[in-house]
Amino acid sequence: MSSSSGINVPPLARPALAARLQHVLDHKTKPLGSLGRLESLAKQIGLILNTERPSLVSPQMVVLAADHGLAARGVSAYPSDVTWQMVENFLAGGAAVSVLARQHGLSLTVVDAGVAKDLVPRAGLQIRKVAPGTADASVGPAMSLAQCQQALEEGADLVRGLPGNAILLGEMGIGNTSSAALLMTRLTGLPLVQCVGRGTGVDDAGLQRKLAVLDQALAVNDHAQSPLEALAALGGFEIAMMCGAMLQAATEDRVIVVDGFIASSAALVASALQPEVLSRCVFAHQSDESGHARMLAHMGVQPLLHLGLRLGEGSGAALAWPLLESACAILRDMASFESAGVSQADA
Amino acid sequence: MSSSSGINVPPLARPALAARLQHVLDHKTKPLGSLGRLESLAKQIGLILNTERPSLVSPQMVVLAADHGLAARGVSAYPSDVTWQMVENFLAGGAAVSVLARQHGLSLTVVDAGVAKDLVPRAGLQIRKVAPGTADASVGPAMSLAQCQQALEEGADLVRGLPGNAILLGEMGIGNTSSAALLMTRLTGLPLVQCVGRGTGVDDAGLQRKLAVLDQALAVNDHAQSPLEALAALGGFEIAMMCGAMLQAATEDRVIVVDGFIASSAALVASALQPEVLSRCVFAHQSDESGHARMLAHMGVQPLLHLGLRLGEGSGAALAWPLLESACAILRDMASFESAGVSQADA
Repeated sequence: MSSSSGINVPPLARPALAARLQHVLDHKTKPLGSLGRLESLAKQIGLILNTERPSLVSPQMVVLAADHGLAARGVSAYPSDVTWQMVENFLAGGAAVSVLARQHGLSLTVVDAGVAKDLVPRAGLQIRKVAPGTADASVGPAMSLAQCQQALEEGADLVRGLPGNAILLGEMGIGNTSSAALLMTRLTGLPLVQCVGRGTGVDDAGLQRKLAVLDQALAVNDHAQSPLEALAALGGFEIAMMCGAMLQAATEDRVIVVDGFIASSAALVASALQPEVLSRCVFAHQSDESGHARMLAHMGVQPLLHLGLRLGEGSGAALAWPLLESACAILRDMASFESAGVSQADA
Repeated sequence: MSSSSGINVPPLARPALAARLQHVLDHKTKPLGSLGRLESLAKQIGLILNTERPSLVSPQMVVLAADHGLAARGVSAYPSDVTWQMVENFLAGGAAVSVLARQHGLSLTVVDAGVAKDLVPRAGLQIRKVAPGTADASVGPAMSLAQCQQALEEGADLVRGLPGNAILLGEMGIGNTSSAALLMTRLTGLPLVQCVGRGTGVDDAGLQRKLAVLDQALAVNDHAQSPLEALAALGGFEIAMMCGAMLQAATEDRVIVVDGFIASSAALVASALQPEVLSRCVFAHQSDESGHARMLAHMGVQPLLHLGLRLGEGSGAALAWPLLESACAILRDMASFESAGVSQADA
């Protein structure tokens, strides 16, 4: 894969199928449009999977983890060690995403995209470490262009090795709301202050410190204006790898469930490279992280849930998952007015 | 049971448990409060079920169906026959609520509270018909006080016969957004126009006709000001029976999942009789029916989903159900910082 050049995500140009899906939904035993957002979700999944009777098969929850040089600048309420500690927690089954993935029968794969500690290889863990954490983006690029390209390619390779037709993407990385905010301001043109939030929960002083550090990162990386240059200079290994995973999953017409603020920043970069990625993306929720609502609006996408989440990990994607199953079930299993012998609305 | 007099729903006065639940949530491996609405839901369910490790057992989806005299006045886009036709569809497994209940392992019981047709008894159907539809509320009370009391008692009896510790309540009844709007305006004091919406989808002329008919109903039933008198004069058999079911379920400390606009109107009446009913209620979603957001705000409750649904049947309650399971799983199965060896936030 070469997302900087060769990869191409075509539009879901299936107008006949789109019309058939709408017809099927409109003849189910319910008032027109009365299942609201679930109906547009059903249409989208039907279009991605190219069928009027979609089934989601072997859904894969992938949590990408990496460390951030910026974390040493005090942009997070937590120390960097929490990244590897949470990877252990994911694998031991005690984290929110572990619990929710079990609840919904999602296979969980944790990926070391660049954790600042050597992890012991084991089932459920893929070691794809580009480096033990990015460089400090407030003094120079977070990664080289070569490292960024490597992360994108590892993300694509990861997806190629996974079964099923749906992938849920989450992340872990102390400091990564900073990277996401930097990518957001650079790619959307919105002022930094509209992109930065409290992350895991910095206080007012911490928020001011975070803003000052990120201002430095923007200044020192002023040259990095294209999506790929910005991803390298301001991103993280987990974000770049997720971006590569999204591009690959989109070319394979998999349903991509995007978690929160950081996962959305990967989608923002991916869609800046290949806009049609978004037609394969379901945005699980609008998080409580300041900036996420604006980021979603910038991409013109509608999240499914509004639960004030700000955890990441893929937890919001897992919480939204049953709605995707419901959307498919509605299409497949509901009766039509005709088949059920139910009278239709007055003309 | 005598909801007009004897029944009493006490507060969930469990301050020690509330503190323990908060402590447990705050020590899970996640930033404080980062699971947002899911955390308050977990606390509520723990309080209702009186445990730090709640499990939802044998959840019961109950769909109450009845006909409305008002339907003859053209307040709905659909003919009254759709009520019994949809009951058949529920039982045949082809309706939205049938499909979603199957998806989530919810036992489905359909209750004939007052359908205007004799239904053939069978498994999954309870015949508790008070009368074959209410009287036309635009010319007099929809039901007598004795009928209303009978419906309340049937609802309580219904709950007493169901297993498990959680009940999801939905409804079917052509014309019942009219009853719900009438109850809302009478019990909240909000102007009728703020309570009336398009229901299953009446057009502009239909909406004007609906408003005019409902104005008549309010005028002719001007005497009915207490919650019980209003329920009798303006309600429906399915709404009254649901109200009785809610009161009984609350006294038994079951988790009550309230569906949309009509189910919420039953909760509005129930809470006017016994305010502490609301502490046992989880409001599944904010529907697209105009007025529902205001009704929820009047009760001071927060819905889980915002999906633009306007179907009823219990479909929104079923869609929200996995979130309740997730809330319990978070409390039961997530690791604590201590047990997982994860560092906490900087002080």
